[in-house]
Amino acid sequence: MSVERWDVFELVLEGPETGNPFTEQTIEGVFRCKWETVSVTGFYDGGGVYKIRFMPSFAGVYEYTVRTSFNEPVTGTFCAEEASGENHGPVRVANRYHFAYEDGTPYFCLGTTAYVWDLQTGERIAETLSTLRESAFNKIRFCILPKHYDYNLNEPRSYPFVGEPMDSSVLNRENFMQYDNQSEGNSWDFSRFNPDHFRHIEYCIQELGKLGIEADLIVMHPYDRWGFSCMSKEEDDRYWNYVLARFSAYRNVWWSLANEYDLMYDKSTEDWERFASLICAGDPYGHLRSIHNCIPFYDYSRPWVTHCSIQRQDLYKTAELVPEWRERYGKPVVLDEIAYEGNIPHGWGNISGQEMVRRFWEAVCRGGYPGHGETFLNREGVLWWSHGGKLHGESHKRFQFLLDLWKESPGNGLMPCDEFWSEVCAVPEMSLTQPVRAKEYYLIYYSFMQPAVKEYHIDDETEYQLNVIDTWNMTIEDRGIVKGKFTVQLPGRPYMAIQLKRIRHG
Amino acid sequence: MSVERWDVFELVLEGPETGNPFTEQTIEGVFRCKWETVSVTGFYDGGGVYKIRFMPSFAGVYEYTVRTSFNEPVTGTFCAEEASGENHGPVRVANRYHFAYEDGTPYFCLGTTAYVWDLQTGERIAETLSTLRESAFNKIRFCILPKHYDYNLNEPRSYPFVGEPMDSSVLNRENFMQYDNQSEGNSWDFSRFNPDHFRHIEYCIQELGKLGIEADLIVMHPYDRWGFSCMSKEEDDRYWNYVLARFSAYRNVWWSLANEYDLMYDKSTEDWERFASLICAGDPYGHLRSIHNCIPFYDYSRPWVTHCSIQRQDLYKTAELVPEWRERYGKPVVLDEIAYEGNIPHGWGNISGQEMVRRFWEAVCRGGYPGHGETFLNREGVLWWSHGGKLHGESHKRFQFLLDLWKESPGNGLMPCDEFWSEVCAVPEMSLTQPVRAKEYYLIYYSFMQPAVKEYHIDDETEYQLNVIDTWNMTIEDRGIVKGKFTVQLPGRPYMAIQLKRIRHG
Repeated sequence: MSVERWDVFELVLEGPETGNPFTEQTIEGVFRCKWETVSVTGFYDGGGVYKIRFMPSFAGVYEYTVRTSFNEPVTGTFCAEEASGENHGPVRVANRYHFAYEDGTPYFCLGTTAYVWDLQTGERIAETLSTLRESAFNKIRFCILPKHYDYNLNEPRSYPFVGEPMDSSVLNRENFMQYDNQSEGNSWDFSRFNPDHFRHIEYCIQELGKLGIEADLIVMHPYDRWGFSCMSKEEDDRYWNYVLARFSAYRNVWWSLANEYDLMYDKSTEDWERFASLICAGDPYGHLRSIHNCIPFYDYSRPWVTHCSIQRQDLYKTAELVPEWRERYGKPVVLDEIAYEGNIPHGWGNISGQEMVRRFWEAVCRGGYPGHGETFLNREGVLWWSHGGKLHGESHKRFQFLLDLWKESPGNGLMPCDEFWSEVCAVPEMSLTQPVRAKEYYLIYYSFMQPAVKEYHIDDETEYQLNVIDTWNMTIEDRGIVKGKFTVQLPGRPYMAIQLKRIRHG
Repeated sequence: MSVERWDVFELVLEGPETGNPFTEQTIEGVFRCKWETVSVTGFYDGGGVYKIRFMPSFAGVYEYTVRTSFNEPVTGTFCAEEASGENHGPVRVANRYHFAYEDGTPYFCLGTTAYVWDLQTGERIAETLSTLRESAFNKIRFCILPKHYDYNLNEPRSYPFVGEPMDSSVLNRENFMQYDNQSEGNSWDFSRFNPDHFRHIEYCIQELGKLGIEADLIVMHPYDRWGFSCMSKEEDDRYWNYVLARFSAYRNVWWSLANEYDLMYDKSTEDWERFASLICAGDPYGHLRSIHNCIPFYDYSRPWVTHCSIQRQDLYKTAELVPEWRERYGKPVVLDEIAYEGNIPHGWGNISGQEMVRRFWEAVCRGGYPGHGETFLNREGVLWWSHGGKLHGESHKRFQFLLDLWKESPGNGLMPCDEFWSEVCAVPEMSLTQPVRAKEYYLIYYSFMQPAVKEYHIDDETEYQLNVIDTWNMTIEDRGIVKGKFTVQLPGRPYMAIQLKRIRHG
């Protein structure tokens, strides 16, 4: 088996099937190379099969020792090759407000949400992967556990535990809320996982990985009729540890402790902090960690939180508040929900494509990271936001254009520049490791405003390439080189931007 | 002379031309009928002519005595007839957050701004009046003093004082700011008014009156190269008293102490409060009074302030903040500047027609009063916002539709209803004098959101006429009578609204 740096090295052992292997057996490994020594935990995968996974953070020879409760220690070596192709390692926080892959390649986070795309039929999953392949998205948020909610009354493809779900034939759009956050009618053995369910999640993580997409795993959530949201502390912790043991070695995994944690009334801050401790102990690779709100933000200044995972708190101002949040938390600001493009009745799910694209540009030009989602009603009841499938909106078609332009900015991230009152101006974020000269680059976005002309004066000497950008129609017009005080003629319609790139001589 | 209740009764006297009649002579009158006794001040109108004006607040016989510094007292009587036609008296605050004419007719304030339309050529003024006649506007904000600003470098038709202005041939778009708020190069005798200038303003007030439009007079402002913004306290007070003596008797006058008072660096709160005292003393009719901000609000809770005259403080949230301001000040919230429809470079002057109309509906459905303005660049340099003329935008075409619909609401004003999170819902404001039954009427606006379907349930019994409104395309679709839980199919595009009118039986 050839394993690259940041790939998964997996060891498969046979062991007892009797009793409850999930609670009665253990499997622990230590992986060691010249530059690191890492302890990892394995898991029972059913049918007498035990697995332990490891992600090497370096290229070179690794030695390992795996100890189990049921056998003699196993030792061995393997060689991690240099990373190749699109393998840049896991995504890390870089330059305080931004991201980069572990090999230093800047990562411009442009995510979408499809909560339970992974738990639909194989056909739908294939369709979702095909949609993602054609898209600009490089992150997707989704759940490990099935979702019970409006438009989500069907059964998932599988359940995480052994047992039987409640009879869902009683459900309809009128009464489904009564079954929220409850366990009645279900009979699960929370001490016995269903390995098929988790193997399938792994398949999804791996398929996303092949597409260069980060898997932002939502480990808990409140939209639940099966009782998975109101397990005991012991059951919660066992679930967390199983999740950590199975998924941590995949380089494209991010941890979202919960979606709308504040709607999980059975959980307290103490619980969330305990889960965070479990992650910090059980994920030796330090994948990105956050937690997503419905209304009140979690305290993103907690040391284990690597980045803000924000749902807007205001119906009108969303991406416009990025600078405030950057300042408050001093971490990357990821806007995982700024409303969905669509036409459903819910107020969070019916903005236009224009408004979504506007919010994306507002976020980017303020040094934040916007997230997409789509909720168009259709006969099949397949809404991207939950089920994946096809995209029906207009915003997603404009994201590759944004991403390409975004990547042109020097350094690995933009920051807001306060120079102007009305237009939104971004300049490269300064950093010690990737120094960017002042007055190097400007990206100025006019949002819903529609000036027919603008005047600028950066200084008297510096020459800039001036491009006029139509963010909606996706055109870039070369306006040549400008210097000193200059005038920009604009078409007098919304959603325009300009780009100023310093000309280097000699 | 036939004078109606709330018309102007004017007495003209001859007197000395020698010396300085403006400072040396006085003219005071007392007007008395069965129900009121009112003291008023007259003014020198030039050419040896003195005038005193009075607005009778009642129909009936008035006796008067006018005493001057130059002649024997003059006494007389006149009969004020009942008001007729569109004469409803001055506008008052009614029902705390709203307005009504003195005869009780509700007044739904829908204003525009054209700062110095009154100081343009006669031809332009006629054009402006013609535009206003075709419009839905029932209030216009404008200045008594000429304006010096971007796009406003020309000379006004006349000056308020005797003397000579600075040489304006030195001005251009690059340097005009240097001449802001200063007096150098001008030579005025601030003790001698130019009656022609004020007579012309009266003409404008009267012409507006004929159109049923309130004249929201901006008495001071900072965009000034003539030194009118930095006169001494004594000169300021003399100006204020002259303005009050001349204009108070016109029923359609409102007092705006200043536009962007906070940019008048020579004036202090003490000065504004003193001017307010002069108004309260010099205007015996109690016309509406406010003061307009650039950035910080004036303290609208001051007792002399009758209503808020707000310029938005946030580029994104404007009309959406009406409920907050209603609660803070407990007075009508008039949004005299929520940005202008247009395409100029200034961030306050380049929103689209859609965005302007959206802000209007947001304001109305929150119990506020939105104001319009237009700033489209053109070859003639005639921008409605300052010069009047023609309207070039799209928003103004949608205001009569809004106004007609607005007037359908029971009572004399709307208030925000917190029932829904996303859509904006208005219900009639409750009042003791005009009681409105609960659940009588709902106006629900979806703003930029585009739901394809919505469900409501007011109660099980009440029947409502349901209308679906396209606020942009100006259509009202009759969807018949609904009761209990009902579903509204919508077209899934922005700027829609619905109206629910309670059906009365028997």
